[in-house]
Amino acid sequence: MSADFDLETRASADDHQALRLWLRLLSCTTRVEDQIRQRLRQEFGTTLPRFDLLAQLERHPDGLTMRELSERLMVTGGNVTGITDQLEAEGLVLRETRPEDRRSFIVRLTPAGRRQFKRMAATHEGWIVELFAGWTPAQKTQVHELLAQLKMHLKDNT
Amino acid sequence: MSADFDLETRASADDHQALRLWLRLLSCTTRVEDQIRQRLRQEFGTTLPRFDLLAQLERHPDGLTMRELSERLMVTGGNVTGITDQLEAEGLVLRETRPEDRRSFIVRLTPAGRRQFKRMAATHEGWIVELFAGWTPAQKTQVHELLAQLKMHLKDNT
Repeated sequence: MSADFDLETRASADDHQALRLWLRLLSCTTRVEDQIRQRLRQEFGTTLPRFDLLAQLERHPDGLTMRELSERLMVTGGNVTGITDQLEAEGLVLRETRPEDRRSFIVRLTPAGRRQFKRMAATHEGWIVELFAGWTPAQKTQVHELLAQLKMHLKDNT
Repeated sequence: MSADFDLETRASADDHQALRLWLRLLSCTTRVEDQIRQRLRQEFGTTLPRFDLLAQLERHPDGLTMRELSERLMVTGGNVTGITDQLEAEGLVLRETRPEDRRSFIVRLTPAGRRQFKRMAATHEGWIVELFAGWTPAQKTQVHELLAQLKMHLKDNT
């Protein structure tokens, strides 16, 4: 009975470890995200979902369908169609009919959109460097590798 | 000149390291969050902001003001007043006038809200254990400590 009890105590301690870890991870991510949201608003008068959408398009010069865009966006709080409409009205992105399937279209950056994103991205990268300066380069490498391992587990199990 | 150049190359490599780390951190957090959102919807017909709000109240049995609630919520996508109204209508939370300041009120869990949250929380904790099983207990401890260090840096610098 005492062995059972130990096992249960250990299992429960492990459970709490995972939960505590997740809450800490979430609180750090939220804190960084909040800072980025705040600074994007102050410096560029824009939002994180808008920035995130431009970033995805910058990584895919051939354009993305609305569905692909939705799947790739990493932050919540934005309506993909609504944001795309706004960015199109501002001349930063454009919708193009796909030659092989005239019913669907892809979204791409315009040259103006690319220029504006690059300007914001350079500043954004500086903020990230500053916010993560609490870790040494060696610690950053360590966390990066640990996250690779977690990502693989999540890929295989979700 | 070659020393300057090396310094610049190194700085740029470090910049990219921080950015890559942040993107990986964000993608892991988003993946876990998406899973939790999906499972909360399927299993309990509820949303992550609702669950998060109940969780904050469970941690503060004396109740929280709306302002304190907003500050403590860790996930986005919810309107605190709107969610509180819904949960109050369902009898899971209640608003109480504070004796010392009749203009403001605090939000608390009702006994029914506490029971419902506890049932969801136990299942939720199991999901978190499963999603983070990609790390050994020793690795979880390691990440937990590294995050503590990052959190301190963020606290001092934001």
